[in-house]
Amino acid sequence: MMAREHLIDIARSVYRSYGFAPIDTPALEYAEVLLGKGGEESDKQVFRFTDQGDRDVAMRFDLTVPLARFAAQYAQELGTPFRRYHIGAVWRGERPARGRFREFMQCDFDTIGTLSNAADIETLFVIHDLLEKIGIERFTIRVNNRRVLNGLLEKCGLQEHAVGILRALDKLDKVGRDAVAAEMTDKAGIPASAAQQVLDMAQLKGSPAEILQKLEGMLAGSPTGEQGLQNLRELFAAVDACGWPAGRVNLDVSIARGLDYYTGTIYETFLGDLPEIGSVCSGGRYDNLADLFTAHPLPGVGASLGLDRMLAALEEMGKTQKATTPAPVLITMFDAEHVGQYLQLGRRLRKAGIRVEVYPEPKNIGKQMKYADRKGFRLALIAGGDEFAADQWQVKDLVRGTQTSVSTSDLVTFVTAALRESTAAG
Amino acid sequence: MMAREHLIDIARSVYRSYGFAPIDTPALEYAEVLLGKGGEESDKQVFRFTDQGDRDVAMRFDLTVPLARFAAQYAQELGTPFRRYHIGAVWRGERPARGRFREFMQCDFDTIGTLSNAADIETLFVIHDLLEKIGIERFTIRVNNRRVLNGLLEKCGLQEHAVGILRALDKLDKVGRDAVAAEMTDKAGIPASAAQQVLDMAQLKGSPAEILQKLEGMLAGSPTGEQGLQNLRELFAAVDACGWPAGRVNLDVSIARGLDYYTGTIYETFLGDLPEIGSVCSGGRYDNLADLFTAHPLPGVGASLGLDRMLAALEEMGKTQKATTPAPVLITMFDAEHVGQYLQLGRRLRKAGIRVEVYPEPKNIGKQMKYADRKGFRLALIAGGDEFAADQWQVKDLVRGTQTSVSTSDLVTFVTAALRESTAAG
Repeated sequence: MMAREHLIDIARSVYRSYGFAPIDTPALEYAEVLLGKGGEESDKQVFRFTDQGDRDVAMRFDLTVPLARFAAQYAQELGTPFRRYHIGAVWRGERPARGRFREFMQCDFDTIGTLSNAADIETLFVIHDLLEKIGIERFTIRVNNRRVLNGLLEKCGLQEHAVGILRALDKLDKVGRDAVAAEMTDKAGIPASAAQQVLDMAQLKGSPAEILQKLEGMLAGSPTGEQGLQNLRELFAAVDACGWPAGRVNLDVSIARGLDYYTGTIYETFLGDLPEIGSVCSGGRYDNLADLFTAHPLPGVGASLGLDRMLAALEEMGKTQKATTPAPVLITMFDAEHVGQYLQLGRRLRKAGIRVEVYPEPKNIGKQMKYADRKGFRLALIAGGDEFAADQWQVKDLVRGTQTSVSTSDLVTFVTAALRESTAAG
Repeated sequence: MMAREHLIDIARSVYRSYGFAPIDTPALEYAEVLLGKGGEESDKQVFRFTDQGDRDVAMRFDLTVPLARFAAQYAQELGTPFRRYHIGAVWRGERPARGRFREFMQCDFDTIGTLSNAADIETLFVIHDLLEKIGIERFTIRVNNRRVLNGLLEKCGLQEHAVGILRALDKLDKVGRDAVAAEMTDKAGIPASAAQQVLDMAQLKGSPAEILQKLEGMLAGSPTGEQGLQNLRELFAAVDACGWPAGRVNLDVSIARGLDYYTGTIYETFLGDLPEIGSVCSGGRYDNLADLFTAHPLPGVGASLGLDRMLAALEEMGKTQKATTPAPVLITMFDAEHVGQYLQLGRRLRKAGIRVEVYPEPKNIGKQMKYADRKGFRLALIAGGDEFAADQWQVKDLVRGTQTSVSTSDLVTFVTAALRESTAAG
């Protein structure tokens, strides 16, 4: 939980630094609100019941449908564009597995009510800053634009086969080029030559600039394709201006996530040290968030941090904190007569900005030290009769294994300095 | 939501400063886990249903029962004492009213596994620091100890009437002394003289020291009463050492909240400017948190911040922020050709720790200024063709109504200083 709260804090501070404001929506909504658009798979997974007031209600299974309902309801009042983030639990009646739970957190941010590519570029910036602030050194954001593929299909007169083609293309990583080509001809029903053309484009390799140049030829004459290319050019020009390490943002024409939903830029984010865990932050641009709830069109762009997956990754990479106490200092308690002094020392240290737990009852030193070790305290402050008589405290540094006598009046200064050193050492 | 997140941040930082660690439990638990101890009222209010796996499940209606289940399950592993806080939504199928919702947040902290009065004293400290950090200047924490009343009943041989007496006493504020005395004799079945004795004690007025002295005589000879008195004496000695304003912590022998649950110290907290809103932070000591789940006794002490009530109070006291943007700076956008420069300025400012939103599309100045006003931005940065040619930005201070030309290279310094002044002015 401490690692999770830390991650949520980082996400919030990055989202806020771009002007995204928090929203929350209820866990329970009318079932028809949540399920209107969800399709069959969601229906089976959703926790749905009739409440005391005979209302047909359900627990939210993502934060997108509640956002759509919220945006449709409040867009007039809030005005557009608006930027929101939403961090909250969602529920799905799935079979739990490693990294898959019936209750899990989503961590979304969206810019609603603008068609401008500047919002797409800032979405990329947010993803970048998020990963950087979490402390990931090696990661790659893969970007694509759905209009690129749509442009090619348009050029070849294959628009009506788009869904089948995309469904096949989505399996490229898993089944390989030949199987995808076969599915495109057999199931999507397009000529073998067209399938090869689509796959040639999807498998373009090289720097973003090189790929953009090759795409220009492939898409010449398709307005949709050229629009997608123009957006990608602007995005990669902005990336170049950031001076990030090479390979931080790649153009990958094969990614096509969110078959029926995304219509423009698409993002996926992979960890350099743990690519096999999958994308930790994904999203894209959509034409209309809330067509089910309002006739007012609400285009937008956003992405979602996969909190549980990121936590699992940090753990695997040894990047999560081991201490289970949020306070680095433990004041031990020996002498029931001096309870007031233990407690007041706690207050004095807290006033100086130091988080400190006072062990609540007198117990032998061995037990209290075991407690301190198990929880990962950095310093233990100890005083019994002798120390109180001499107006001193023993400060035990549990990381370095040292012990020092410090006068009560010097204690705040000493502890502040010791914590700084101990943090550097540990 | 911004005010709510701010309040939650304060609560977390205060809880952590005392060594409380976060926990979370699922929204859904087996119904028998949640309802085993809940009693009839809870049964009617709880959202309960049969899920896809034919499990009888329910949504948590407080954080105490999930904590009990958690503590019983993990106490061996975690070791005692342990300190946890839990901030999360709970659900009750009540009729919604002002300040009463079907979904609301609870914000609990508890010290589990110790009988020591030091934990009770630190619980009081946490409540105090919480209110102070929220920015409340005038508040009173009312403290009592259930053993005081129990001691008197013990002395009078009225223990078996305790529940009826407490139930009557609980209405003292609402119905007055005579009605309570009548209920004690009629319903609880105790002699009129005993009822008067209980009421005399409950209505003791004066400073904590004065009341403690009067209680000494009333409770002499009752071990239970004397134990309660001793705990209160220690607590008020610790309060005296804090140097808080007089009246910050009062001894109120009439409060008896949580009829069947609390067994020792009790806390209630009232706002000096808005006492009628009721207690904003309440809690107490209990003998056994989890007797339903484990034979291992788990005594503890804790309290809960009434988040929604506190938010309502802050709003009524005019202490909530009006801005709906978490970013104080808006970079307006005029010139589609210079999108990259608007975006890069955003990055530069963010690197300097300034939260800044870039308006995502070129629009006329009037619309963008209206947007800035409505959301409560403090500064708007403006540049069109002329400014880009001169390498300058217009900085509009929306609080003071001033406008200044600043060279691009000086912008970070200027904005940092302007925000500091504007915050002081606004």
